[in-house]
Amino acid sequence: MDTAFSIRFEPDGQVYEASGPVEVFLAAAARGILIEQPCGGTGTCGKCRVRVIDGAPPPSESDRHLLEPQEIDAGWRLACHLQLDRPARIEVPSAARSAAGKSFGGALDLAGRRRVVRVRMLEVPSASSGNQESDLDRVAATQGLARRAITASPAALAELRTLLATGPRVRAALQGDELIATFPPPAASCFGLAVDIGSTSLAAALVDLSCGEVAASASRLNPQVVFGADVISRIHYAAEHAGGAARLTSAVRDGLGAIVDELVKAIGCTRFDVVAAACAGNPTMIHTWAGVDPAPLGIAPYVGTWSGEIDCRAAQVGLPIHPNARVYAFPMIRSHVGADAISAAVACDLDRVSRPTLLIDLGTNSEAVLAEGGRYLAASAAAGPAFEGATIRHGMRAAPGAIDAVAITGDGRVSVNTIGGLPPAGICGSGLVDAIAELLRVGAVAPSGLLAAAEEGGRHWPDGLGARLKPVNGQRAFILADQSSSASGEEVVLTGPDVRQVQLVKGSILAGVTILCGHFGIGVADLGAILLAGAFGNYLRKTSALAIGLVPAIDPERVRFVGNAAGVGARLALVDQDARARAHAIASDAEYVELASHADYQQIFMRSLAFPEGRKGG
Amino acid sequence: MDTAFSIRFEPDGQVYEASGPVEVFLAAAARGILIEQPCGGTGTCGKCRVRVIDGAPPPSESDRHLLEPQEIDAGWRLACHLQLDRPARIEVPSAARSAAGKSFGGALDLAGRRRVVRVRMLEVPSASSGNQESDLDRVAATQGLARRAITASPAALAELRTLLATGPRVRAALQGDELIATFPPPAASCFGLAVDIGSTSLAAALVDLSCGEVAASASRLNPQVVFGADVISRIHYAAEHAGGAARLTSAVRDGLGAIVDELVKAIGCTRFDVVAAACAGNPTMIHTWAGVDPAPLGIAPYVGTWSGEIDCRAAQVGLPIHPNARVYAFPMIRSHVGADAISAAVACDLDRVSRPTLLIDLGTNSEAVLAEGGRYLAASAAAGPAFEGATIRHGMRAAPGAIDAVAITGDGRVSVNTIGGLPPAGICGSGLVDAIAELLRVGAVAPSGLLAAAEEGGRHWPDGLGARLKPVNGQRAFILADQSSSASGEEVVLTGPDVRQVQLVKGSILAGVTILCGHFGIGVADLGAILLAGAFGNYLRKTSALAIGLVPAIDPERVRFVGNAAGVGARLALVDQDARARAHAIASDAEYVELASHADYQQIFMRSLAFPEGRKGG
Repeated sequence: MDTAFSIRFEPDGQVYEASGPVEVFLAAAARGILIEQPCGGTGTCGKCRVRVIDGAPPPSESDRHLLEPQEIDAGWRLACHLQLDRPARIEVPSAARSAAGKSFGGALDLAGRRRVVRVRMLEVPSASSGNQESDLDRVAATQGLARRAITASPAALAELRTLLATGPRVRAALQGDELIATFPPPAASCFGLAVDIGSTSLAAALVDLSCGEVAASASRLNPQVVFGADVISRIHYAAEHAGGAARLTSAVRDGLGAIVDELVKAIGCTRFDVVAAACAGNPTMIHTWAGVDPAPLGIAPYVGTWSGEIDCRAAQVGLPIHPNARVYAFPMIRSHVGADAISAAVACDLDRVSRPTLLIDLGTNSEAVLAEGGRYLAASAAAGPAFEGATIRHGMRAAPGAIDAVAITGDGRVSVNTIGGLPPAGICGSGLVDAIAELLRVGAVAPSGLLAAAEEGGRHWPDGLGARLKPVNGQRAFILADQSSSASGEEVVLTGPDVRQVQLVKGSILAGVTILCGHFGIGVADLGAILLAGAFGNYLRKTSALAIGLVPAIDPERVRFVGNAAGVGARLALVDQDARARAHAIASDAEYVELASHADYQQIFMRSLAFPEGRKGG
Repeated sequence: MDTAFSIRFEPDGQVYEASGPVEVFLAAAARGILIEQPCGGTGTCGKCRVRVIDGAPPPSESDRHLLEPQEIDAGWRLACHLQLDRPARIEVPSAARSAAGKSFGGALDLAGRRRVVRVRMLEVPSASSGNQESDLDRVAATQGLARRAITASPAALAELRTLLATGPRVRAALQGDELIATFPPPAASCFGLAVDIGSTSLAAALVDLSCGEVAASASRLNPQVVFGADVISRIHYAAEHAGGAARLTSAVRDGLGAIVDELVKAIGCTRFDVVAAACAGNPTMIHTWAGVDPAPLGIAPYVGTWSGEIDCRAAQVGLPIHPNARVYAFPMIRSHVGADAISAAVACDLDRVSRPTLLIDLGTNSEAVLAEGGRYLAASAAAGPAFEGATIRHGMRAAPGAIDAVAITGDGRVSVNTIGGLPPAGICGSGLVDAIAELLRVGAVAPSGLLAAAEEGGRHWPDGLGARLKPVNGQRAFILADQSSSASGEEVVLTGPDVRQVQLVKGSILAGVTILCGHFGIGVADLGAILLAGAFGNYLRKTSALAIGLVPAIDPERVRFVGNAAGVGARLALVDQDARARAHAIASDAEYVELASHADYQQIFMRSLAFPEGRKGG
């Protein structure tokens, strides 16, 4: 019996030829389409919904639980529970797959920096009876160095010899006392690869090693998302599936490989022109990328396999750049304060601040480092993936169609902005914060977190606002976009439980900050600066973040968004040897504060839950 | 048309299935039978002769030139010019393929030595809420080291994690500040691989890293011999054949791989138990092994690609031991005084001698280092492959059947000893030196190098001797073994030209030594010691070496054979960090003396040619 059939994915038009029953998310992944599974494929978050245009099978129990009957009729199914054994055509909406772009910072002054990789155009004199130094020793001499002062791997030696056979001019990339790679004379650039391995997005930039500028950058969904939205679900995946850890490793390495391909194509170089790499990422990401089982990071006492720098060859971590290139990964402080936090701390000069400065990387796992005068306290708060869209009814990532800003006018009219100006498809993190800030301001969300109902006793809402405060499926909700304006033809709403989710995140972050400040011996008000890092921070409005209390109540002037600081730190580590030394020093000097084990944690957390009082009628 | 046919090699019984016309030496190599081609396959040395028992093709021009008609009739052909297009049965005699064994030295006292690799049985406490150090940092703590004081490659980290998941006891191999490898608890040994990459033989030993003892050693023909007997012919092969350098690399790496297989089988460990390697070899061997084109070593100004140490991973040089193992290769002085000479210098403590000491590595390329009080002069003399059997009519390597000792009694009777007590098949280096020493003593070889003829005017030879001094093919010759006693049924002879060959070697070595001593400001008689290294030295009789003047005329007590000193040095570099530091210092401090460019070289060489006066009638 012939059991072969085709699955076509829309709007890509990619076709997967199945030879038997197949999981849809695997078939999609095989065609380069990554469907996220924030809950780890347990059928509980509903974020992996796809629409089966032709050939929809009967709904699963999870489908019936999480989808509306009319959605099921229209062909919507949860990809995580969707297995097919016959031809189908499936639409994978962007909400299920997009990744936000990340920046690696702007201009960079390299003057006076001790360079990591020195790219030099050399004129290597030919050997002669008067100069019988070896090839490598003659290279050393061009740099004013003694015989044997430069070393090289066998492959680099072979490369050098091949090149010198054609002429005396070579372009050389040197790192420390090592000749990493050599190239034929045309004076082209050599690049370093700055990598930010995020749980959600992988981002990388090619940095021109001669000037430190970003020649190209790109990001894409971390292919690991198919194994779970956050690090915890991926760790569980690794722990519970034979070969799971290896699959996580392949996924993230494949993703990085695809980015490298994209980047080198974009600027017209080859992968051999990329002669160094520096990586930032949280401990789970760095462990899985290095090929190390992350399982222990997920169970008490949450301890990783190492904490120092990695300095290895590209070939050792399957990174498709020059195989001899040295790959650096930042050190970590503890299992949940990782190479990304250290990288960001370097980028933000936390080792040079003279007033207490708090760096918070807002993400699924939020990490905070409080620093002053060479003292560092670090903590991590499992904020959960609310700001990434998971656990929020209509949550989505900062992708086209996502509501990223919300304003309520005096007469109760609501205006929303969407990324790309598309009809609203859902709400992303910054939209959530905005919406709640606005609802707090007009009193529709109470400091306790309660979302008001239209018919609330004695309360008169402006007409437009009252109509939007209506229950959905028995839950209080606020209509952000009605059926006529939304992308799906369904209302896009913010529910009471959504507000609670944000409140929990805000509470855990504020509690963490409070405890960190207490350990440091200062009050929250003593903070000289709060630096908000992470892609999410880029889209956030400072006033809204302060309004909902996501950030401690200090002078807004002292709150700064520092963008993808981890990525900027990785870029620095490519061009500035001292950035690596500083990272080492920060990691060595930092003290880790275990929030959950703090005696008063519960009390402080409960106290941190309340939203600030809104400015009534403002 | 079916062109397939079989070639059977004897006495192995190995069968090669050809699909078309094939070079016999390649077919043999494909079946693991390595036929040497000392002249590089140019059809000029005649050493690759094999006997085609069935299916002999017509003789080639080279066959007719180098073989006797009756040999051709018997099926003998030169393998280098033998192509077959039909079934055949071919005998490959041991003279065409054997390799001599090499020793890696005896007992070694490791007390007080700073070890290169530390093998430790560790009890790594589990992580707990009271000890949240990472796995690697807890390993460091067992060694009294601080957090992040030990580093590890990604693969080693993965290995460590996998192991700690099963229990707290691990066996760890540490090198410097790096964790190289970890193993399950059973307290077995870890090994280092000492490698001596000789032009002719590859030799390697597994050294127990806990005690420094040799657990097993083995040697085999360097598979590169099929591309030429000496380094010069191999360099030419690399220079003149596309892909030739790569073929040399594969050959030597394959050969080392086969030795590793043999060794680990011999002691019942696995290749993963071999966690370090140290290599000695001449510059051409080290270049080709590292994958670097050796061509520049063969043309003026004879300059290599590097001169320092190599310190890389096993995987980078295709060595099938633990892929994370670090592989060390000794530094070189110059293109023809290489890692083998430095290794031998360390083994012989040349940096600790208080009287002028001369180390000579007798081989195809003889290298000499003269040392005293931290001053080193090095030189190399292209002695040629006479002592390996090439260029000598019945020359062969020190393999079973080779005449390795010769004595002439007072009544003119000649007794020869052969390796393994077999019927004489040829004569090896030590036999040559012995034979000439004896002939000098009885006056049958003049100090000028002239071999006497039986009918020499007025000269009366004892009967036995006179009968042996008879021309062969128009050349003066001395019969070492007659037809009735020899292996082939043909006489084994020493010819006048053979004596000249040895004289040239002796002359070039003595000239080198004379020039070195002159540079050093001493006379040859001031030498406190002469150390003879190399496999060949092991078989040499000291009195004979002195008698023919191969060694300067000093008190025989001051002449010492030090065996495979390069191999012993490699073994030291596995267990003694200071051996590496000493090698570095010797290579740095050594001065290279270019013999050929010495103003008086020709004159000194000519003067060095004469043999010492024999003790007449002794």
